Amino acid sequence: MHKINIELRYSDSDQMGVVYHANYFSFFELGRTKMLKSFGIDYYEIEKKGYMFPVREVHCTYLKSIALGETIYCETTITELSKVKISFEHHLVNEQGEIKAKGHTTIISVKKSDFTIAKMDQCLPEVYALTSKI
Amino acid sequence: MHKINIELRYSDSDQMGVVYHANYFSFFELGRTKMLKSFGIDYYEIEKKGYMFPVREVHCTYLKSIALGETIYCETTITELSKVKISFEHHLVNEQGEIKAKGHTTIISVKKSDFTIAKMDQCLPEVYALTSKI
Amino acid sequence: MHKINIELRYSDSDQMGVVYHANYFSFFELGRTKMLKSFGIDYYEIEKKGYMFPVREVHCTYLKSIALGETIYCETTITELSKVKISFEHHLVNEQGEIKAKGHTTIISVKKSDFTIAKMDQCLPEVYALTSKI
Amino acid sequence: MHKINIELRYSDSDQMGVVYHANYFSFFELGRTKMLKSFGIDYYEIEKKGYMFPVREVHCTYLKSIALGETIYCETTITELSKVKISFEHHLVNEQGEIKAKGHTTIISVKKSDFTIAKMDQCLPEVYALTSKI
Repeated sequence: MHKINIELRYSDSDQMGVVYHANYFSFFELGRTKMLKSFGIDYYEIEKKGYMFPVREVHCTYLKSIALGETIYCETTITELSKVKISFEHHLVNEQGEIKAKGHTTIISVKKSDFTIAKMDQCLPEVYALTSKI
Repeated sequence: MHKINIELRYSDSDQMGVVYHANYFSFFELGRTKMLKSFGIDYYEIEKKGYMFPVREVHCTYLKSIALGETIYCETTITELSKVKISFEHHLVNEQGEIKAKGHTTIISVKKSDFTIAKMDQCLPEVYALTSKI
Repeated sequence: MHKINIELRYSDSDQMGVVYHANYFSFFELGRTKMLKSFGIDYYEIEKKGYMFPVREVHCTYLKSIALGETIYCETTITELSKVKISFEHHLVNEQGEIKAKGHTTIISVKKSDFTIAKMDQCLPEVYALTSKI
Repeated sequence: MHKINIELRYSDSDQMGVVYHANYFSFFELGRTKMLKSFGIDYYEIEKKGYMFPVREVHCTYLKSIALGETIYCETTITELSKVKISFEHHLVNEQGEIKAKGHTTIISVKKSDFTIAKMDQCLPEVYALTSKI
């Protein structure tokens, strides 16, 4: 499990006075990008090499609202990694460890040029090698 | 089923050159707000009366990416309406009727003052009355 | 002067209960994109041809806040058009014609490949021809 | 001068492959919120006390684009502080100290209840006291 602090911005809030629900997916994305970075994989370098990881599926359950000024962490776990996709579980928690939201995301590996599937064992072996770590 | 056109903005795109995945939830929200409006229910009036509909759960499957310049519609259907929650199904489609993404959202009715549950049969009878329409 | 209606989204609001100030620039951008479209110029086609119009400078004065539920229009005027840049003036107004905000934007024409200046009289003559219309 | 690191998010990018211009204002806002915090002033506490600082005017000049993956800092300086407004200057710089963008913002102090002016010497003396520090 990988954990980062999320720096909330005023623009994350909505007129309910809490963080807007769609923005949680930006936090999840930051969580998984930094998790990959902690494994030595720079997502922006992957894009420069001509591959991308578009999102195939997301889900989120909102348990408690998040207010600006709260200290929030995003915990990320890889739950599945195959030749063509990676699935993540995300928890947003506060300082007391209370879970604010639970989400999951599945991303797929594609060629940047035409969005067709790029098999990671061939195109991105450094990412595919993570299968041994989960 | 209720259908609206989504006016894409440049800010909806990301560096994959397509609409950023989290923004689909803004479109879904616009779709359900306008659907309620078509039933004579103004969500902003509900907020003024002291109630809100925070999101409890969302899901989205991304089938085809959406590029700026495409004509996109959001189709909304109410799939469930109880005293405390409403569930919606959302389809984003293009002019040819191709489905770009399928999502669902569950919102709950709460008091604005303290985020506690507000039973719609008592607090928002005009919304609860929609049960007969679905 | 070109005028469009802005479809406000819930995500445009912040916890002050009004439209977040940075989002006005998305509205301005939509205003100028649609103005160009009304002149027969499709900005997304310009990008496909290998040119872009990054923003060089923006300014906005906020006169009255904008609440969700209000009907808002964006009025756009081209104030200057040279071989390398276009300047716009933007007004956000409500149904009564009250001015909510006044802004201006200067965009420059560049090559997509390396962000170097692209002279419009040579690269984008259809845009440069607009000088006769302002 | 106060300096913070900006954590860029994927959602900050647009299809030019760089950070979307309107998002700079979120960074500026984060910069000034954290600067006030460094002076012992918690903006979210100010809102809880019934006051707000809506934006009255912004300006930004974009010198060089910002790509995801770059390390970016926001430098904030208070340039003016009167009884009713505060003006800030913002610089976004990279690790080499290159200035990417220069902006300024003027915020005004108002009552949350009705957006009318709140004189800081009376309502927010701890903020007004900063005049001696600039």
